[in-house]
Amino acid sequence: MGGDYAPDEIVTGALRAKEELDVHILLVGDPDRIEESIGKHTQSHQLEIVPSEGVISMNEEPLVALRRKKNASISVAMNLVKENRADAVVSAGHSGAAMAAALLRLGRLPGIDRPAIGAMFPTLMADKSVLILDVGANVDCRPQFLEQFALMGTVYSQYVLGIDQPKVGLLNIGEESCKGNDLAIRTHQLLDENPLIPFIGNAEGRDVLSGQYDVIVCDGFAGNVLLKFAEAVGSVMLQIVREELPQGLHGQIGTAILKPNLRRIKQRLDHAEHGGALLLGVAGVCIISHGSAQAPTIFNAVRLGKEAVDNRVLDRLRGQYQKTVANLGTVSANQESEG
Amino acid sequence: MGGDYAPDEIVTGALRAKEELDVHILLVGDPDRIEESIGKHTQSHQLEIVPSEGVISMNEEPLVALRRKKNASISVAMNLVKENRADAVVSAGHSGAAMAAALLRLGRLPGIDRPAIGAMFPTLMADKSVLILDVGANVDCRPQFLEQFALMGTVYSQYVLGIDQPKVGLLNIGEESCKGNDLAIRTHQLLDENPLIPFIGNAEGRDVLSGQYDVIVCDGFAGNVLLKFAEAVGSVMLQIVREELPQGLHGQIGTAILKPNLRRIKQRLDHAEHGGALLLGVAGVCIISHGSAQAPTIFNAVRLGKEAVDNRVLDRLRGQYQKTVANLGTVSANQESEG
Repeated sequence: MGGDYAPDEIVTGALRAKEELDVHILLVGDPDRIEESIGKHTQSHQLEIVPSEGVISMNEEPLVALRRKKNASISVAMNLVKENRADAVVSAGHSGAAMAAALLRLGRLPGIDRPAIGAMFPTLMADKSVLILDVGANVDCRPQFLEQFALMGTVYSQYVLGIDQPKVGLLNIGEESCKGNDLAIRTHQLLDENPLIPFIGNAEGRDVLSGQYDVIVCDGFAGNVLLKFAEAVGSVMLQIVREELPQGLHGQIGTAILKPNLRRIKQRLDHAEHGGALLLGVAGVCIISHGSAQAPTIFNAVRLGKEAVDNRVLDRLRGQYQKTVANLGTVSANQESEG
Repeated sequence: MGGDYAPDEIVTGALRAKEELDVHILLVGDPDRIEESIGKHTQSHQLEIVPSEGVISMNEEPLVALRRKKNASISVAMNLVKENRADAVVSAGHSGAAMAAALLRLGRLPGIDRPAIGAMFPTLMADKSVLILDVGANVDCRPQFLEQFALMGTVYSQYVLGIDQPKVGLLNIGEESCKGNDLAIRTHQLLDENPLIPFIGNAEGRDVLSGQYDVIVCDGFAGNVLLKFAEAVGSVMLQIVREELPQGLHGQIGTAILKPNLRRIKQRLDHAEHGGALLLGVAGVCIISHGSAQAPTIFNAVRLGKEAVDNRVLDRLRGQYQKTVANLGTVSANQESEG
């Protein structure tokens, strides 16, 4: 029920996901409105409808609203995961509410102080993306939070994105370890010293899209600014190309010939391909899609969720925590034997 | 002597500025190398050469290096302004060293705790730019610093860029005043309450290039990440266009026809047009150009410096401070009469 185009576009995307991805879909919301949306496409469907009451709207304060609307769609959806009736949640609604509901209903994974929202950015290298986290869940961070983001990003990169040896970077304003604000300098040291994090150094703004990094960690303020800027800049560029390309007679002819190529450029810059961001660190798979998500984005968001489930991301993250504990044990044992 | 292409490209840009802008140019550095660079263009010139000893290199710690190399080119250049032999300094060298040298030799303007580096970004609206500050001088900021950046940005926007009623925004991750990290929330309140700042609200990452804002303030960490990301993203987009456009026979023909239009797109995205960033808040006009600056950028940097001098930016900033003091006087008088 969340997002600008609910429930119509959500239903359209879900129907396609059901058909193409071999997944079971539970649609949470107002049964009448959902049935009506489905009716526009088909009379016989195999989607399960789970009734809920109310929606958290974009300008509500998450915790207050969740407490008042106990059966809001996002809470009911999270409960489905908690009760093992669903493996993953996809939401295009209020992202803060989705995170709060996930925390309240599912809780955090062991070893994680703060869940993070991870977003995939396209890079200069074709077919290569970079995972940036956090892009908005935690605006004021401590160095340990960023260290945990790096651990989660590494696991996700390895097991869901299939990158053998992911390269992890820290968003910063210079290459050297002494550069940056207080948070960055202290985080640099933690990442450098953690043997479970394949840390290759600071990533400056100009390096984010270079393809040199698989994972880049930052606080949710810088990450959110970057995410929204990157989304907008794609449209700005396309608009400049659209304004300048058809200028003059040559321009008009050339642009007409190039239509299919221009469409491909738009695709490569288009964010709908990514489906949504991942909420990492809660005890369930949650995909936070765009408020403006339409059917193709929802389809991709379901696929993203399925990939995370198929690749047992939660188990891997729990395993990582075991390794961290074991590693801390080794370190303190070493320290004791040294002392 | 600073930057990747010194002194050759600096000299070439300076010669052009001398010719086209009706300015007197003093070149600070190694006289032999500068004469050699000039000799490649002309035998008779009217540039003044001021000898200096040594350069602060990119990986040196500014304060340490400035203390050790007392006659480094950047320090000698700042002294010229201090001694009223020059009106402005342009540097393509170590930006941290330029800032430190400006602070040591020229000092701060009254009412300014921390000088800021302001950079012009192009926007969606043709011929309209937005001034972002700080883009790197202060990585850890207090709300009052951002308030001072907003005051300086307003004055600069009014008197140098000629914008009657500049609109000032605060870089943030949501529209509402309650959104953001601790710094943003506290800064929002200060900007809102200051009658000298035409504050129109938070600017999200997606709004930065919209053209709705004339000035956007942020801490130097977020600003620097954004600046370097924006610079890189232009190249990324152009590369994608260059890769995809000539695909296939149609693509090759169309691209050939469109060559002049593509060149115009590149120009619109090109940063050389901007010349450099401004160091605002020190008692002198300082233009911090890119380390990779070549002649056209240096020419534009000199033009930027001349505009700041012609429009008496320093006097205006001092005047703003008088108004602030007067305003504070009024406020406390009001408070007293209320109390």
